[in-house]
Amino acid sequence: MQRIFTLNQQELPTRWYNVLADLDRPLDPPLDPRTREPLSPEALTTLFAKMCVEQEASTDRFIDIPAEVQEIYRLWRPTPLYRAVNLERELETPAHIYYKYEGASPTGSHKTNTAVAQAYYNKIEGTKRLTTETGAGQWGSALSFACQALGVDLTVFMVRISYEQKPYRKAMIELYGGEIVPSPSDRTKSGRAILEQDPDSPGSLGIAISEAIEEAVSTGAKYSLGSVLNHVLLHQTVIGQEALSQMELAGEYPDAVVGCVGGGSNFGGLALPVFHDAKERGRRVDFIAAEPTACPTMTKGDVRYDFGDEAELTPLLRMHTLGHKFVPPPIHAGGLRYNGMAPIITRLVEDGVVRPVAFDQVDVFASAVLFARVEGIIPAPETAHAVHAAVELARDCARRDEKKVILIGFSGHGYFDMSAYTAYLAGRLVRTS
Amino acid sequence: MQRIFTLNQQELPTRWYNVLADLDRPLDPPLDPRTREPLSPEALTTLFAKMCVEQEASTDRFIDIPAEVQEIYRLWRPTPLYRAVNLERELETPAHIYYKYEGASPTGSHKTNTAVAQAYYNKIEGTKRLTTETGAGQWGSALSFACQALGVDLTVFMVRISYEQKPYRKAMIELYGGEIVPSPSDRTKSGRAILEQDPDSPGSLGIAISEAIEEAVSTGAKYSLGSVLNHVLLHQTVIGQEALSQMELAGEYPDAVVGCVGGGSNFGGLALPVFHDAKERGRRVDFIAAEPTACPTMTKGDVRYDFGDEAELTPLLRMHTLGHKFVPPPIHAGGLRYNGMAPIITRLVEDGVVRPVAFDQVDVFASAVLFARVEGIIPAPETAHAVHAAVELARDCARRDEKKVILIGFSGHGYFDMSAYTAYLAGRLVRTS
Repeated sequence: MQRIFTLNQQELPTRWYNVLADLDRPLDPPLDPRTREPLSPEALTTLFAKMCVEQEASTDRFIDIPAEVQEIYRLWRPTPLYRAVNLERELETPAHIYYKYEGASPTGSHKTNTAVAQAYYNKIEGTKRLTTETGAGQWGSALSFACQALGVDLTVFMVRISYEQKPYRKAMIELYGGEIVPSPSDRTKSGRAILEQDPDSPGSLGIAISEAIEEAVSTGAKYSLGSVLNHVLLHQTVIGQEALSQMELAGEYPDAVVGCVGGGSNFGGLALPVFHDAKERGRRVDFIAAEPTACPTMTKGDVRYDFGDEAELTPLLRMHTLGHKFVPPPIHAGGLRYNGMAPIITRLVEDGVVRPVAFDQVDVFASAVLFARVEGIIPAPETAHAVHAAVELARDCARRDEKKVILIGFSGHGYFDMSAYTAYLAGRLVRTS
Repeated sequence: MQRIFTLNQQELPTRWYNVLADLDRPLDPPLDPRTREPLSPEALTTLFAKMCVEQEASTDRFIDIPAEVQEIYRLWRPTPLYRAVNLERELETPAHIYYKYEGASPTGSHKTNTAVAQAYYNKIEGTKRLTTETGAGQWGSALSFACQALGVDLTVFMVRISYEQKPYRKAMIELYGGEIVPSPSDRTKSGRAILEQDPDSPGSLGIAISEAIEEAVSTGAKYSLGSVLNHVLLHQTVIGQEALSQMELAGEYPDAVVGCVGGGSNFGGLALPVFHDAKERGRRVDFIAAEPTACPTMTKGDVRYDFGDEAELTPLLRMHTLGHKFVPPPIHAGGLRYNGMAPIITRLVEDGVVRPVAFDQVDVFASAVLFARVEGIIPAPETAHAVHAAVELARDCARRDEKKVILIGFSGHGYFDMSAYTAYLAGRLVRTS
């Protein structure tokens, strides 16, 4: 039985797919944080690379991937697609389960796809230094790798509790040459304001974003965001394009696409190209977006304009949100602890294209352990949400005797998250719902 | 430029290559630890699966890989071959550098290749439980994965200092269902003898082997070893066979094959099939075996009969050895801290086929950091020795303007060894030579 489907490097996608070309009506524009008026592209370029801002609003269906970005992608892309034969057998399901493995990237997750693109555009536009934030550390390490590859300096504001609890992710960021500042820090006004109130603050993604933006604006650096924005989802569409070619090699077409959602970029990267392809072929696909009950942005949040950060420095986006002051409980899937959502994903949920579901981490880890034991590969806690959603669906197929084809977005491996598995196996993982 | 060379799953090797068929004269037999007389195969089967004992002495050139073992290999095999284009550029060398990436296995190293085979033979022969030891944790996690896949129980004696310093490896072993006992333990006579002398003993691989063997013999379990023995090297030959096919895809033939050597199995797995193929084609290949100066088994050891463990429970093997009571300094490449050597590798060194070299860990980490920064993938500290040997060779090619083709055995990734990189980057890594 074939379990791995690989593409030749000549089959690496040469264009990104832009879903903005295929929405019924345009997204609502980002608003200026002070005036609440629609933000001009010029205003955004104080923060982001010009090309990224251009892509943010572009309605071209396909956008060429620069040759130098393709060249760096070729260090690990195309990534393999696996068929989870052992999992199917274990679940006694007639469903066929595939997973697209982004853990094959140098830093172990999908984040490198946009990190390389953003570092590249900044480099050719003359940016000397980027700033960013990182929670669980996957984005920080991906951007550190990309900046190293392209010769751009990087400062990462790392949520203090992760900085202390994840020394290996910190080591990886430093290995690739990134500077790390535990956040909140005394390097920024936003950081100092928090520290005055609480000198022992464990930090949060919202605070770290504020600090990274303030540092960029005040030092003439540029800022880089690892999810949520349209251009970030755009860069991730290499995942879905490759997966479609690989499903074709397998002689199947997905009935369901399942991903985990924090800010929405890995889910979008897989789902959007399938959305486009299915539309062209007139096929129906069930797009399932899994989030934690501890941070139920899509299943419990409102859709409205909100800030992306604590200190209200980001543009306002119309999106699912739990409120920008919301601090989620400290679950192990740090990458899913974000109050907001990609406006593209919000729109697709509103349109009934994407179906959000929420799971408790205890149930999620039960499926992750099952997956690791039969398939070998250990899912990251974030990815484990997608795995759990797929397991539930496959069990449902077993009950109904339905032979669905399920495609999982396997966003990353869990080698840096083994303490979460230890906690689960020791019965120390707490239910938050 | 093509950087990744993949094979289809149909191209997975279906036979292991047995170098015993191609040695000029047979290896010297293992001796009974008490009588010092040649050991009968029957005596060995009290410890090992019958099929492994048979393979240990077989002179058949090719041995079929059982279908069920192939099926499990297909979870991650064939592994990719990469061309390190960025490294070549960085070194300004005319050499072409390839590396065969065994880090793609579920537990991140080549160890799974023999773990699956040994667990399989034990299963079909009715073994209910295996015992083994682990130092750095790569072997313990590989065998735990394999035993989980095949439904065999496992007890791992883990060197106490690793047990304490490597909680993530411990977590991985437990995730796959293996029982872990920190060694020295009070569960065995050998362990208790050590603890009486030194209740705080950090343990060693030699002690852990003694405990695992004693536990197997006294409880009717079987024992499994992750390196050194002929059948272990045999199971690793899938690596070299795949690499040859992939080099053919790349249109090149290796002038040099470079690997790191602890007990010799990953090096043998890559080098032996190339040795055979080169002989058939009448080509000359430089086989370079890299070891740490802190544990210079081949470059400073004697060749003589010696035990593989502290308590003198193993059969005596004729091999390079630093003496079975030798305790190497605590370098980060825990997998290379072994006093003995595979008798096959010893013979090839004596015959002038394999050229051993030794490096200090500080120099090794300098090359590993360089590699990670330009190629993305982070080498395990053991693998870093192979990377460093290749870097030195490629630099030499640059000086001489020689266009050699270098093939590295990349035995595993360093995601579980980030603390070693932190130590190196902070200048805290000590030179031992």
